[in-house]
Amino acid sequence: MRTTVFTIALVALPGIAFADPLPSWNEGDAKSAIIAFVDGVTDPGADTYVTPEDRIAVFDNDGTLWTEQPAYFQLLYAVDVLREKAAADPSTLTSDILQAANDGDMEGMLANGNEGLIEIINISHAGITPEDFKASAYEWLTTATHPSTGKTYASMIYQPMLELLSYLRDEDFKTYIVSGGGIDFIRAIADDAYGIPPWQVVGSEGDTSYAVSDDGTPTVTKNGGLTFVDDKEGKPVGIMSHIGQRPIFAGGNSDGDFQMIEWTTAGDGPRFGLLIHHTDAEREFAYDREGHIGTLNRGLDEGPDRGWVIVDMAQDWEQVWPDGE
Amino acid sequence: MRTTVFTIALVALPGIAFADPLPSWNEGDAKSAIIAFVDGVTDPGADTYVTPEDRIAVFDNDGTLWTEQPAYFQLLYAVDVLREKAAADPSTLTSDILQAANDGDMEGMLANGNEGLIEIINISHAGITPEDFKASAYEWLTTATHPSTGKTYASMIYQPMLELLSYLRDEDFKTYIVSGGGIDFIRAIADDAYGIPPWQVVGSEGDTSYAVSDDGTPTVTKNGGLTFVDDKEGKPVGIMSHIGQRPIFAGGNSDGDFQMIEWTTAGDGPRFGLLIHHTDAEREFAYDREGHIGTLNRGLDEGPDRGWVIVDMAQDWEQVWPDGE
Repeated sequence: MRTTVFTIALVALPGIAFADPLPSWNEGDAKSAIIAFVDGVTDPGADTYVTPEDRIAVFDNDGTLWTEQPAYFQLLYAVDVLREKAAADPSTLTSDILQAANDGDMEGMLANGNEGLIEIINISHAGITPEDFKASAYEWLTTATHPSTGKTYASMIYQPMLELLSYLRDEDFKTYIVSGGGIDFIRAIADDAYGIPPWQVVGSEGDTSYAVSDDGTPTVTKNGGLTFVDDKEGKPVGIMSHIGQRPIFAGGNSDGDFQMIEWTTAGDGPRFGLLIHHTDAEREFAYDREGHIGTLNRGLDEGPDRGWVIVDMAQDWEQVWPDGE
Repeated sequence: MRTTVFTIALVALPGIAFADPLPSWNEGDAKSAIIAFVDGVTDPGADTYVTPEDRIAVFDNDGTLWTEQPAYFQLLYAVDVLREKAAADPSTLTSDILQAANDGDMEGMLANGNEGLIEIINISHAGITPEDFKASAYEWLTTATHPSTGKTYASMIYQPMLELLSYLRDEDFKTYIVSGGGIDFIRAIADDAYGIPPWQVVGSEGDTSYAVSDDGTPTVTKNGGLTFVDDKEGKPVGIMSHIGQRPIFAGGNSDGDFQMIEWTTAGDGPRFGLLIHHTDAEREFAYDREGHIGTLNRGLDEGPDRGWVIVDMAQDWEQVWPDGE
């Protein structure tokens, strides 16, 4: 009789008691650590319990929630728009930097450092409303294709991270993106791609202004430039500006995320720091200590001693992208 | 028989069908307009229906959700902290402006314009973590008392606006504060006072930085100054930075809120603009076109033609503060 009741419970409650919340994560230390942390902060009887209002989780975007190679998707978008504008009107190319971008000459694009990159980005990101910009970015992200995979950029989000975001939200976490990328570029796709609404996206920002046209139409306009850099020391600052309290869970993949994870995990009570280590040359890309994108040195050197969980993409992820590859 | 069933329904469902969502609002045009708007955007069968994710409502704070006379509470707090510090250490008073603030000399405090006010504010708002600042502001707001009412500042929130915030949230709106006041000062009390969490507060911001101490403790610190002014043209900009989309409902009380309401009500579909007119010298304060705080000219001149609802505090509010006066 006891066995029968137990069997009925097993059949009746599969979604509650037995579903794997992270099916694309292989069994291992990373998956176990995530589940143990979530179990601990959501168990009202445990010392590690955290009330739902304090369950804030923050994630970097490039290299953490989607691919960032061979270059940040936002820069690839900016160059595509620049080329399109230059094809229609060659006088768009007012400088050597813009000419280099049009020619696909990476060395020339980088010749003037960040100032040159901002010049390139301003071609698509300035003199436009956030709404029109987001529509343009959304169109590009869902139709343009990645040079090596042939997939749309929007489909190169990581399936295991989608599951982690959903799992945390199911357990009453609020999930935020805290990215060095532009806030409006990410907002263009965040709701569709990750289920994250615009007000839960923190990112770098440019100058923005409000004006009323002669016919009385009020408009907010992106003027370009860079007024806030949401990277490195900027990430905790951006979090305090937009969220107003310290998260308990932070995930990233590069040393640009170091301070965000450092600050998150230094708080009282249970904390979780996660670093995605790009080890998977076969299915995605393998890179860490060198290169111009997603450099990860301090995180690899200090993360383990700080108790941060390093995800080995090749070993810990059963699947990379949602389409099964 | 029919009558009996109807009577039972009346008794069984009083909270659903018959409760007044705005009991402290007197019957009149303002109350009717609010309820008609909310009914319209929440009725799935109506042309005016708005999906819950677009139900964003924004409210100014000083003079809209709580009292702002005889001066912004944040300035009164800054002067109180300055006096306390000067009493303990007179060398705090390094300038004529700070001396004037200590002496309660309003003319002297304003002698250097905004720069002088920032100097005064920096005494309490700089060199402190947001957490410690909020704890100090909370303590002051809940214990210090207003010069003319004798009430704590935290209790001078408007009962009719608390009901409006709750009513909107019950109807699946997200309610935000968008204030010219400092973001951390409002966050200190917003959850307790209004049920608004820190991530739904937009305000003016000062310089903030991240650093790690010699013993390895990471800290976010408020450095003072003013890096973003969330007033007038700044309000739509602050909204786009923090929320990322245009609200459908905006409430304010001064010309500092004009652009926020103008921009909100210029969007497509149903929109609501609300201005609180301080007409109640007996119960609160009466002021509009003149003075240094909460000046309201353009809103009174143009608001009605724009379809904005002007709330006459003396006439439309049955009660001002939660304690019944």
